[in-house]
Amino acid sequence: MTLYKAPLDDQRFALFDVLGAEAVLTGLEGGDGHTRDLLDAVLEEAGKLAEQVLAPTNWPGDQEGCHYDKATHTVTTPKGFKEAFKTFAEGGWAGLTMPEAYGGQALPAVLGTATTELFQSGNLSWSLYPLLSEGACHAMELHGEEWQRQLFMSRIVSGDWTGTMCLTEPQAGSDLGLLKTRAEPAGKGLHDATTYKITGTKIFISAGEHDLAENIVHLVLARLPDAPTGSRGISMFIVPKFKVNADGSLGERNSAYAGAIEHKMGIKGSATCVMNFDEAEGYLIGQPHKGLMAMFTMMNAARLSVGVQGLALSERALQNSLNYARERLQSRALSGAKFPDKPADNLLVQPDVRRMLLTQRAFVEGSRLLVLYNALQVDVEARAKDEATRQKASELVAFLIPISKALVTELSIECTKEALQIYGGHGYIGENGMEQFARDARITTLYEGTTGIQAADLLGRKILQLQGVGFRHFLEEISAFCQQHSADESLRAMIGPLAVYTKQWGELTMKLAGRIQANPEELGAAANDYLYYSGYITLAYLWAKSVAAADKSGQAETFKQAKRDTAAFYFARILPRCLMHQAGIEAGVATLPQIA
Amino acid sequence: MTLYKAPLDDQRFALFDVLGAEAVLTGLEGGDGHTRDLLDAVLEEAGKLAEQVLAPTNWPGDQEGCHYDKATHTVTTPKGFKEAFKTFAEGGWAGLTMPEAYGGQALPAVLGTATTELFQSGNLSWSLYPLLSEGACHAMELHGEEWQRQLFMSRIVSGDWTGTMCLTEPQAGSDLGLLKTRAEPAGKGLHDATTYKITGTKIFISAGEHDLAENIVHLVLARLPDAPTGSRGISMFIVPKFKVNADGSLGERNSAYAGAIEHKMGIKGSATCVMNFDEAEGYLIGQPHKGLMAMFTMMNAARLSVGVQGLALSERALQNSLNYARERLQSRALSGAKFPDKPADNLLVQPDVRRMLLTQRAFVEGSRLLVLYNALQVDVEARAKDEATRQKASELVAFLIPISKALVTELSIECTKEALQIYGGHGYIGENGMEQFARDARITTLYEGTTGIQAADLLGRKILQLQGVGFRHFLEEISAFCQQHSADESLRAMIGPLAVYTKQWGELTMKLAGRIQANPEELGAAANDYLYYSGYITLAYLWAKSVAAADKSGQAETFKQAKRDTAAFYFARILPRCLMHQAGIEAGVATLPQIA
Repeated sequence: MTLYKAPLDDQRFALFDVLGAEAVLTGLEGGDGHTRDLLDAVLEEAGKLAEQVLAPTNWPGDQEGCHYDKATHTVTTPKGFKEAFKTFAEGGWAGLTMPEAYGGQALPAVLGTATTELFQSGNLSWSLYPLLSEGACHAMELHGEEWQRQLFMSRIVSGDWTGTMCLTEPQAGSDLGLLKTRAEPAGKGLHDATTYKITGTKIFISAGEHDLAENIVHLVLARLPDAPTGSRGISMFIVPKFKVNADGSLGERNSAYAGAIEHKMGIKGSATCVMNFDEAEGYLIGQPHKGLMAMFTMMNAARLSVGVQGLALSERALQNSLNYARERLQSRALSGAKFPDKPADNLLVQPDVRRMLLTQRAFVEGSRLLVLYNALQVDVEARAKDEATRQKASELVAFLIPISKALVTELSIECTKEALQIYGGHGYIGENGMEQFARDARITTLYEGTTGIQAADLLGRKILQLQGVGFRHFLEEISAFCQQHSADESLRAMIGPLAVYTKQWGELTMKLAGRIQANPEELGAAANDYLYYSGYITLAYLWAKSVAAADKSGQAETFKQAKRDTAAFYFARILPRCLMHQAGIEAGVATLPQIA
Repeated sequence: MTLYKAPLDDQRFALFDVLGAEAVLTGLEGGDGHTRDLLDAVLEEAGKLAEQVLAPTNWPGDQEGCHYDKATHTVTTPKGFKEAFKTFAEGGWAGLTMPEAYGGQALPAVLGTATTELFQSGNLSWSLYPLLSEGACHAMELHGEEWQRQLFMSRIVSGDWTGTMCLTEPQAGSDLGLLKTRAEPAGKGLHDATTYKITGTKIFISAGEHDLAENIVHLVLARLPDAPTGSRGISMFIVPKFKVNADGSLGERNSAYAGAIEHKMGIKGSATCVMNFDEAEGYLIGQPHKGLMAMFTMMNAARLSVGVQGLALSERALQNSLNYARERLQSRALSGAKFPDKPADNLLVQPDVRRMLLTQRAFVEGSRLLVLYNALQVDVEARAKDEATRQKASELVAFLIPISKALVTELSIECTKEALQIYGGHGYIGENGMEQFARDARITTLYEGTTGIQAADLLGRKILQLQGVGFRHFLEEISAFCQQHSADESLRAMIGPLAVYTKQWGELTMKLAGRIQANPEELGAAANDYLYYSGYITLAYLWAKSVAAADKSGQAETFKQAKRDTAAFYFARILPRCLMHQAGIEAGVATLPQIA
């Protein structure tokens, strides 16, 4: 059994001391009540749910897994999942950030991100059921019709039903333009809207079938009969598991069945389904052929949430490996026994073990700031009182999403690996729980767009196509920070390198853009290294910002010192990774010749 | 089901074109017959065994796992394991490198390493059964008495029995000085030797119990009654599962039972046992209290073999991910369609996919050279005709072992990760086999000494305690190579950086040694980065050497070009990792403050 304690102190530090979330949120449209007190109280409750209800189901859920019954096409989730979901729904968590008009509490996205971290640390597999619901709601909120929102979305918000995103097909993964699922008009249905018969097979559908809720609302990408080929011919449909009557009661079973569940490396408590749609009844959502755009609405939120998954797993792995390093007695310190009255010293006396712990801490706390910063901009984008502020936030969000998704998930692979390593051979044993974190983390760099897709999105779309507007805002923010703290004694060792790297980041980007203009293949040759390079500088900025905030805060001296120590570690031992990524960016496509 | 084709071409290139193994081996004591033809023929047969017998059992063995029967304390291995072991034993593979006096074939260690790679690629879990036997034989060969060798070792060499190494206890992992298992004299036994009653619990005992052979010879570390505390009070004992009569027939069951098997992240076909010794009858092997030294005899060979495990998994993962990248059609090349008549281009057109493939190839082929170079030095150490050559080889081996073990295993985590990543979401699905490689690879940085232990061994023992004798030989070899090829056009881009890094490696080491002398904690603060730094330069040298050898060889032009491409990739995109490790080495222990 692994430990888990909700890291509320660090969340509060990030939100209130570093990001000034209270001032930002209460200044937004509808934000009057979004005070620190309110947010604190919600975090406290979420922490209890995560620690007491979810965390104990994590390892048993991995062992038990989901069970698929071929005869009934139904999925049984692990013991405790259903009860946990009931508690979650009754607590109003499904509607935390959803509009009040549909039964939600309209609380800030950044609070949703913070509570999601806690739930995902508690049990990542379980948390995928509500996560997919959230994406479906976002799509309906932005692209659906009012009756669709009233009928379908409000029931997800209440936690009675859940949602899915049905995108991938066997031949269409990263390249959704290849998808084949068809939608054919089939007369009128509810609210006089056209119904469609949806036919096709979708794979990798998280929460596609389960026993947590009475109905499942699938959002399915498919092609209309007159659809252009490729990604411009994709539409989105609402396809409920059970048809819904006009009064919201359940009608007959729709022909949308799980055909199998996948046997996966991890997240075994999450039912990953093959979904067969056989003339299933559906309703168009949004404009014909604009399904990919609607899908990206879900995708941005989902990508940020997947970044948070990486953070959540790393946090729990760190807590356990730190505890193990403290408890495990083995060998003596290099400079002589530190606990001479014990049979051996603990692992914490080993500098190399501290290196592994500080690496995790630097990534966990840095990643937390990154995703919360990103989420706060989502709130500003949605509800700032002036258009210019909303626009700027929107550009920052677009820029930050691929970094939040790809960097944090990749680092979670490293963090869970280091945490396991601290356990030595005991880390490899199932019962100790560390290997589950490593297996679970491994999905995060794959789904909702692989790291390669994120890297191409960052460099190709966010930097080049959008001419780096979000990037420039971010560089300006860092420069302003450096300026502001140039005389700050406690930041001296950080501001110098940060300013140098930030300048170099801009210059490297300009040079790279020129090379890509000359040869588009250079984009693919540099994107991965560019993503990491950008990510490590981003975290360096956030670490410097943390130290500045800690100094000014009312936190305890040990808390402040831990921030300073971790920041110093980051600058000395992690930030130099940029050197190798710079080499990768500059190496060019010539170093990646064709392979037979 | 995953592919596997024995990489005989690259093995032969490494052995004969790069390392000149034929000239070296035929010049050694007893090496007259060790010609290329002989080695080629053996490799060919080993390849068949790996491809046809072992490879098909790999994934099913992972699914089925081992089964422990509590009532009888017995372990059933997965389907096919027993038959494979029979084929292996009948083919004489168990005695390939063993002395002829005990029924072996006395073939070179480097050939054993090459064939072990193939078997481990075929099925790593399975290959652990013969691997542990090999370690036990080495210990008996060097430290046992003649009757022990005749009675026990010869039966392992024949493949009738297997062996184990029983070191770890719950409270004694990396720190064997803490072990508690006791050995008490109990009268005379076979050959008038004293018998001992061994009592204690060992954990993590690979092949501790299984159904592949009729007897198991445990080599157990335990304390004699008069033993000093700590690591200087440990003795080694032979404790057979079934007692053995003087004529070699099996006697009564000894009180050495498996109490459980572990549920692990991977290598599920390998029985990892808790072993309970309850006054089990054993014989002392070697000198009293010198068990740790005897253990290290086994350990060196075992560590090299674990390095080879990393290579073996990476090789098979590479083969599959390359094949997938070739077959999977998704999206178009950045500069326009490369396969316009197909629905999409394959993944190979994506530079970032080629980056992941070339990373694997650079590590796989570089690692292969490293372990074969290392193993060839083992042969020279054992059988060179003059003492000075043996001595030098011994020093080189001591220096190279921690690099071969730690670097190659750590890189196997990276390689299997990248291979899985190329599959996208499909890599996460059990049936596709890629996630098994990632899970199996995860053990290799843990057992036979974690990476941290190897790093401390390299820097603390091999560099500092032994005053870097092996290191100096290696630096001289690289310098001579750079000198020799300074005017070589095709090596121009490599010799420059290699010479610079090599010089810097020596200087950094001197400076670091000074800092460690002033504060021993600096050893722990630098060791991990020093290991990687050393490892990447080592691989750079071997890659340059590969290109030089390829140029002069009779290999096909495509083969030569692939070597040049991969080497150029390595120098441009991998070697710069040294920059960050240099920063880690120089950062000092001050950046790793105590953690509460």
